Amino acid sequence: MRSGFARRDFLLGATATALAGRLVRGESGATRRMTTDLVCGNLGVKADLPQALDLAHRHGFESVGPDAGQLAKLSADQLAGLLADLKSKGLTWGAAGLSVDFRGGDDAFRKGMSELPEQAAALQRAGATRVGTWISPGSDRLTYVVNFRRHAARLREVAKALGDHGIRLGLEYVGPKTAWTASRFPFIHTMAEMRDLIAEIGRENVGLVLDSWHWYTAGESVDDLKGLAAKDVVACDLNDAPRSVPIDQQRDGVRELPCSTGVIDAKGFLSALAAIGYDGPVRAEPFNATLRTLPAEEAVSAAARAMKRAFALLG
Amino acid sequence: MRSGFARRDFLLGATATALAGRLVRGESGATRRMTTDLVCGNLGVKADLPQALDLAHRHGFESVGPDAGQLAKLSADQLAGLLADLKSKGLTWGAAGLSVDFRGGDDAFRKGMSELPEQAAALQRAGATRVGTWISPGSDRLTYVVNFRRHAARLREVAKALGDHGIRLGLEYVGPKTAWTASRFPFIHTMAEMRDLIAEIGRENVGLVLDSWHWYTAGESVDDLKGLAAKDVVACDLNDAPRSVPIDQQRDGVRELPCSTGVIDAKGFLSALAAIGYDGPVRAEPFNATLRTLPAEEAVSAAARAMKRAFALLG
Amino acid sequence: MRSGFARRDFLLGATATALAGRLVRGESGATRRMTTDLVCGNLGVKADLPQALDLAHRHGFESVGPDAGQLAKLSADQLAGLLADLKSKGLTWGAAGLSVDFRGGDDAFRKGMSELPEQAAALQRAGATRVGTWISPGSDRLTYVVNFRRHAARLREVAKALGDHGIRLGLEYVGPKTAWTASRFPFIHTMAEMRDLIAEIGRENVGLVLDSWHWYTAGESVDDLKGLAAKDVVACDLNDAPRSVPIDQQRDGVRELPCSTGVIDAKGFLSALAAIGYDGPVRAEPFNATLRTLPAEEAVSAAARAMKRAFALLG
Amino acid sequence: MRSGFARRDFLLGATATALAGRLVRGESGATRRMTTDLVCGNLGVKADLPQALDLAHRHGFESVGPDAGQLAKLSADQLAGLLADLKSKGLTWGAAGLSVDFRGGDDAFRKGMSELPEQAAALQRAGATRVGTWISPGSDRLTYVVNFRRHAARLREVAKALGDHGIRLGLEYVGPKTAWTASRFPFIHTMAEMRDLIAEIGRENVGLVLDSWHWYTAGESVDDLKGLAAKDVVACDLNDAPRSVPIDQQRDGVRELPCSTGVIDAKGFLSALAAIGYDGPVRAEPFNATLRTLPAEEAVSAAARAMKRAFALLG
Repeated sequence: MRSGFARRDFLLGATATALAGRLVRGESGATRRMTTDLVCGNLGVKADLPQALDLAHRHGFESVGPDAGQLAKLSADQLAGLLADLKSKGLTWGAAGLSVDFRGGDDAFRKGMSELPEQAAALQRAGATRVGTWISPGSDRLTYVVNFRRHAARLREVAKALGDHGIRLGLEYVGPKTAWTASRFPFIHTMAEMRDLIAEIGRENVGLVLDSWHWYTAGESVDDLKGLAAKDVVACDLNDAPRSVPIDQQRDGVRELPCSTGVIDAKGFLSALAAIGYDGPVRAEPFNATLRTLPAEEAVSAAARAMKRAFALLG
Repeated sequence: MRSGFARRDFLLGATATALAGRLVRGESGATRRMTTDLVCGNLGVKADLPQALDLAHRHGFESVGPDAGQLAKLSADQLAGLLADLKSKGLTWGAAGLSVDFRGGDDAFRKGMSELPEQAAALQRAGATRVGTWISPGSDRLTYVVNFRRHAARLREVAKALGDHGIRLGLEYVGPKTAWTASRFPFIHTMAEMRDLIAEIGRENVGLVLDSWHWYTAGESVDDLKGLAAKDVVACDLNDAPRSVPIDQQRDGVRELPCSTGVIDAKGFLSALAAIGYDGPVRAEPFNATLRTLPAEEAVSAAARAMKRAFALLG
Repeated sequence: MRSGFARRDFLLGATATALAGRLVRGESGATRRMTTDLVCGNLGVKADLPQALDLAHRHGFESVGPDAGQLAKLSADQLAGLLADLKSKGLTWGAAGLSVDFRGGDDAFRKGMSELPEQAAALQRAGATRVGTWISPGSDRLTYVVNFRRHAARLREVAKALGDHGIRLGLEYVGPKTAWTASRFPFIHTMAEMRDLIAEIGRENVGLVLDSWHWYTAGESVDDLKGLAAKDVVACDLNDAPRSVPIDQQRDGVRELPCSTGVIDAKGFLSALAAIGYDGPVRAEPFNATLRTLPAEEAVSAAARAMKRAFALLG
Repeated sequence: MRSGFARRDFLLGATATALAGRLVRGESGATRRMTTDLVCGNLGVKADLPQALDLAHRHGFESVGPDAGQLAKLSADQLAGLLADLKSKGLTWGAAGLSVDFRGGDDAFRKGMSELPEQAAALQRAGATRVGTWISPGSDRLTYVVNFRRHAARLREVAKALGDHGIRLGLEYVGPKTAWTASRFPFIHTMAEMRDLIAEIGRENVGLVLDSWHWYTAGESVDDLKGLAAKDVVACDLNDAPRSVPIDQQRDGVRELPCSTGVIDAKGFLSALAAIGYDGPVRAEPFNATLRTLPAEEAVSAAARAMKRAFALLG
């Protein structure tokens, strides 16, 4: 195993190469602005923010997913120390998760909303500007239209509360056909549908969370990505799919690390994001039980290598 | 084969019995007001309206689906003759199909709309008050929300044009999972969703076309029917499903005549319709290739026997 | 409905045409020797042998499936009368079913075997020479090899008992993938496998029962049929499949009358049988609930029309 | 990451505990005789035998799969050195793979057979006594019976050649329904069927390779294992299955490390093997692309931890 330092050097080198390449190609002269991002929970790793920063730094990630709950509990001095650490390590913030339960009853939603301003303020104080969540691709109880209206109303409130603190909200669709056909009433499971919802919400600070896994399982193309603007995308995930499973039989909970099988076109996905000037975090989110049996260091290391392989495809 | 006369006698007898039974049972004292209805095209039988009236009469049906296009071409004398024939045979009108193509491009829709008032007027002159059509349960191009808005806008125009002539519009959902999972964007495939659309259309003269086949494949219950009012239902179809096919693998084009396998609970379906006071046509629509190979008389006779068996379940 | 006489004339005409055509084509100068055959039970029609002969005659069939149980109960005079009727109507015998239960426990098999000689003798007295049965395409208890050995041993006994009376035994495989994948241990479901079993049985009087339905669902070709000799085929069934059902999702209990959808290549199937000189019965066996609701005359008439359409394809 | 030494200590401790437990339970007083076995290729790790011994030793495995090809190339001195290393590390040999291609044409089979004696002799010199291979669960060309006879004939030759050098042959069935339903002619996919084949081969030195993955996907039980004798089992694999995939949709190429999801009852599987006195290797064979992206040390370490967790279940 190479050391974290060696890896970091390598990634910097890869970035420089990519930059040079893009300066030649790019019409706008834009360089790669998206970041390899570490979200420990995605890898089955438990870590507080200082530990996450340390892991990210040693394994060569460029950003870290902030945790609004943890940030809200920090004193001013603790926050200053954390941000100094972030800066000294050359890291930025990725996207936080959304703490509000908007999928169930009204009471739970109201309770979550009452706590959101404080969390949004904490993110704002820390300089974080992105929050993401996912939308369930079906319901056994709510029709599409009723579900759509409810999501629009609730997420409009969420977006407003986040927007008051300069934070954008990203919404992720779930693509696998095995997922959206499992409920009586299928719901949003494609980029086009999510854009319907974002339009219905009607606030400037709402965009997409894109995941190569969902993009693949939804049968979407590089052109679908190129039709987006940078501001349409709040966060991104990068995953691969197991081999020898027909696309319509892929299951959301059975994935692989980026670039481990090549089933999903990571190069096409990332290149399109680069081309539209996407400037946010790119995270691995492999729902893979074997990865989750690894010790923290090895799991993070495996994800770091996978992200490196993927970004190297940007040339 | 029993003669049409014998059959007719039997059906009248069954009706009388059912009536007596319901007078005992019914809280409101309501009698059966729905009719066994003949739609020749559903059986693969080509017949003009006079022929259809003759077939319906001889085989003991109680109503006949009107054809707006044919009616529009009749002179006043011809119409008077037809209506006299209808009356003398003790028949009423069922529901006509909708001639407007509202599923495709704007040009086709506009063309259909331009012809609709004349057809609606012809139905009105003939005393017909019901028109029905079905909604495709998916699209590869239009998201649910976009499709919903388009259907609402177009069908609102249709409903208005029909309403101007005292005609109601019934909308049928397509229930089989094999159908709504076949497109990229599933659309309305349940009663609840159709009620969303009807609410969005927002006109008094729009209701449901119910089909026991779609009610079964959509996993709906007798209670779902009992939650309706008589005015919510414009027309009904009655079909059975092949045996030994799991419900989620039933296919829309492979059906059986009512009460031929018992897979679908015809008694529960019809009893609920009777309980809510449904007063319109009940048609067989068996997509069964073997039935379509029969001579006209035999196909109509087979459907008549099936409807008789079904209505006899009303007790 | 055309009368049986008219139909019979038509069929004779069709035969004559086919004959002429084949005299031109056929290298051996052979004419069509296979017969359109009536098996009332296949159509949901209950009829004893005299009734079956009458139905067959009036609807233009050329042979009738004999019932060994009924034949065994006839006195010599009764049998003579029946055979005179058969002859006067220009009919021959098709294939009887096998009464022995060879699929279950030993006691049932032994009991069936003890009764078989008498039944075989009855068939022999009547001049019938063919018996057919089908093989279940899977078992939850017996492995392929154990099942194969048991079938070979039992059916060898059956074949011997039948052979003692000059009777051939035909074995039918069940092709649909939904059928052979339903058990833990799939068994014979193709022509090639049935030929393995026939070889293992090792008696001259054993051959195939071919069914266009199983031939289609097993993914077999015209060439598979042309690889057979006339003596390899004891009986044949002709059926069609519902439209719009993928081949691997066709279900054994949901079929259509021959030539009603065109999904199955009836012309290719029958032409290949004609080409190899097949000289036995061809029966419709549509597992179609709607057909089974028809009165006897109409069901037989529908089958007769379907067979006529099919044989007309022989040109 | 704990060091290999610490792990080894732990495993010894677990063994001791298990032993104590079994001395209480076991009627025969038998201790655990099966070994945690390292097969580097199963983990995507390339290693020659000295490297494999080193990895096994440091990560606490108890046996190593021998490579007949490598062993055959060693000089007597080299072999003596390797065996001394094996002994000093407290390791034994697991099972080698079979080099003969018995699945294709005769030429390939003959070529493999011509080389087998030399390889068997090499295994014998090294003290290895087990060879294993797997049987394809279907063919598009060979019927079950033809395939069975060919496998029996060929593997009988293989078994004889191996037996001449004191080596046993283990045969593994492939259980997933997605695998055995993919070919036109399903073949052996259950333990019961493999026992048919072993019986047909008819040589004392042939037995099963059991894999918890195939045992699970074949729907087999602990009782199926308890019906075996120790001599019936030549080698074993231990794997887990991804969560949330219905058993009949599990795919052979998508697995997880033992005890990572708990879908497969590792405790029941291993306890039954212990109960029958199985005395051979137990290997992880996770077809998991993410695992294969790990560096050699981490992949071996992950497999070692998984095996430890599994064997700890023996109590």
